[in-house]
Amino acid sequence: MKRVSLAHRAQRLSPTAGASHHGHAIPFDSGDGFPPLFPDLTAAAHRALTTYRDETLQYGGRRGLAELREWIAAYMNEDGARVSGDEILVTNGAKHGIELVCQLLLDDGDSIVVTAPTYLTAIPIFRSFGAEFIEVGQDAEGLDANELQATLQRLEQAGGRMPKFIYNVPDFHNPTGITMTRARREALLELALRYGIYVVEDTPYRMVRFEGGAEPTLKALDAHHNVIHVNTFSKLIAPGLRIGWVAAAQELVARMLQLKSDGGTSPLVQRIIVEWCKTGNFSVQSDKARHTYRSHRDFMVAAVKRDLPHASMVEPQGGYYVWLTFPRDVDTDELTRYAADAGVTVIPGSKFYALHARSGAPWKNQLRLAYSHASPEQIDEGVRRLAAALQRCREESSRAPSKAASA
Amino acid sequence: MKRVSLAHRAQRLSPTAGASHHGHAIPFDSGDGFPPLFPDLTAAAHRALTTYRDETLQYGGRRGLAELREWIAAYMNEDGARVSGDEILVTNGAKHGIELVCQLLLDDGDSIVVTAPTYLTAIPIFRSFGAEFIEVGQDAEGLDANELQATLQRLEQAGGRMPKFIYNVPDFHNPTGITMTRARREALLELALRYGIYVVEDTPYRMVRFEGGAEPTLKALDAHHNVIHVNTFSKLIAPGLRIGWVAAAQELVARMLQLKSDGGTSPLVQRIIVEWCKTGNFSVQSDKARHTYRSHRDFMVAAVKRDLPHASMVEPQGGYYVWLTFPRDVDTDELTRYAADAGVTVIPGSKFYALHARSGAPWKNQLRLAYSHASPEQIDEGVRRLAAALQRCREESSRAPSKAASA
Repeated sequence: MKRVSLAHRAQRLSPTAGASHHGHAIPFDSGDGFPPLFPDLTAAAHRALTTYRDETLQYGGRRGLAELREWIAAYMNEDGARVSGDEILVTNGAKHGIELVCQLLLDDGDSIVVTAPTYLTAIPIFRSFGAEFIEVGQDAEGLDANELQATLQRLEQAGGRMPKFIYNVPDFHNPTGITMTRARREALLELALRYGIYVVEDTPYRMVRFEGGAEPTLKALDAHHNVIHVNTFSKLIAPGLRIGWVAAAQELVARMLQLKSDGGTSPLVQRIIVEWCKTGNFSVQSDKARHTYRSHRDFMVAAVKRDLPHASMVEPQGGYYVWLTFPRDVDTDELTRYAADAGVTVIPGSKFYALHARSGAPWKNQLRLAYSHASPEQIDEGVRRLAAALQRCREESSRAPSKAASA
Repeated sequence: MKRVSLAHRAQRLSPTAGASHHGHAIPFDSGDGFPPLFPDLTAAAHRALTTYRDETLQYGGRRGLAELREWIAAYMNEDGARVSGDEILVTNGAKHGIELVCQLLLDDGDSIVVTAPTYLTAIPIFRSFGAEFIEVGQDAEGLDANELQATLQRLEQAGGRMPKFIYNVPDFHNPTGITMTRARREALLELALRYGIYVVEDTPYRMVRFEGGAEPTLKALDAHHNVIHVNTFSKLIAPGLRIGWVAAAQELVARMLQLKSDGGTSPLVQRIIVEWCKTGNFSVQSDKARHTYRSHRDFMVAAVKRDLPHASMVEPQGGYYVWLTFPRDVDTDELTRYAADAGVTVIPGSKFYALHARSGAPWKNQLRLAYSHASPEQIDEGVRRLAAALQRCREESSRAPSKAASA
């Protein structure tokens, strides 16, 4: 039977069902929230469905509720930005925000700059828009601005099309946990401006800071409306709300509005957030989340030191993840499979690289562990299971040296 | 200051803010629901936020909640389809479903078949994917299958790329209110199959039937998994929930899942729907909606007959809209502006045509009136205002004959 073909973007992606679910495995693989932290939204929902019923059950505007956009603008401005509610577009979560930025800027074959490694879930979104990746490295101070400069210079001299944007997670980078220094932020912005490239700042973990001082957001340093800021309520209130936002220059918001063809983000869920936030819950909840995730981080760092003494680790000052680098003989793709058999799910470094062309294949012995979803007891037990899996993985590899060598 | 360019899809759309809001105007322009009809969802929301809190506040699967997908499959199967929950993808409303279908199938420059006129909100979605439009006419029996056949035959003989899909609203077509006969449905499916083209069935108003018998859905007649069915809870429960679905062959659902990069549709809102539906509310609400919208339809039909006796009208047996054709000297683009001044918002025929190349410019004297949002009293008053606007529009035109002639 003849049939038209799928779009190229659909052919580019493999039709698997995404993250697998292991019934009783300890979940170190996902950025899910810790369920006991989820707030009580019943009163806010009741008000949303009674007092605001004609608003919440009707179609809403595509920009999002004005009150929510004002709240978001004030929240960002308290953090050093200078944005108005008209520069905010409410989205169905931060990933939807990333998708809208791609819709706004990317034609098939355009290139973008990402760090190596980068946020794994953003990779297929970028890929579905036909983006070519340009990777730039990172060190303890964040995205390597010198490498970025050299890359952009080379591209300009070659006379090709410049990348459309530089995508980065500057606070508690996913997966590495690194926070960019202020100097690096300024260098990044200066380079982007010089070459006429947008900066996409994705900072879901910014407020999940356990210690140390925050650097200004890229948006706060953005004097030239060159930064598109993407954020979410998922990491501090609850992922299930699926509400995020984009903050950008008004003309970009106006274009994204036209491309946001979902009939508006649910006014019901937006109103639940407004009602919940306006009675002061947000800062209480943020404190609680910071306190809880700090303790999870502490448990995980202690367990890793105890059970995986040969892994090096950047101890994160915030966020949801610990990034491990094992000795060179450990293959984390293999380790991930052994770990799943041992009852703990992890994500190997290879998944976080948009390209697999870097010399030394740094992902080969890297691994991301999330401490957000599991309880302290599970964290303790999960790291034990991972250590046991590592042991088995090494034993099996040493028994089959040719396989290990070819991996 | 130099800067990279926006994507072509963003450049193709005009950056206006969409539907304008006239404070006290009577709204005949939107497919909003009638607010007094919105159900009481407080109990369902309370259960969703307490009993199901760990599910509803966490990330959900991208397919949608299994219970909701099973409910949807059963609902469709009661209506003659044979689909399983695995063939259902929950979306953020039907427009999001249409967008996913475009992501799945359309490359820049691909063509699609639409009726002339067609659903106005779908037009910019299709356009943002770079779709070329092929229009096919309609008569009282629905999409003109003979014209479709001739068009497809001509395209095939010309050796060009065939259209990717045929988009249609077979039940209470938006804007015309026409329901396709069974013979036309069968002819459409047969042609699509013969030429290897998908059929996209968008049927939000199907259950809003006031009288007469329903024809089977295209999906129910789809023996070859060639129909992608798009639907929504907006028209019978509440638009503010922003929950719709796509029903399609499993391999297409699997691809759309990969392209659905929003982190999943809100499990909170999905659970509210499941909890509300499972206690039998859905059929009670459907009856109530049918009863209310029938009375709105009756008021509008009576008012049009009384105040706009020279307009011809297809009296709809269901749905949300009345489609008027005025005498040829009436320019509905002009009338729309006079109507807004008179305090009633309407949408002129021109907005519902993807192309403006049809001979006779049929849109010129056509107009869509929605009776869903306004109350019976408003409907009565709104049609009076529209008649007064028509009177003024004609008077002004006759005073400025050159302008009317050039319009």
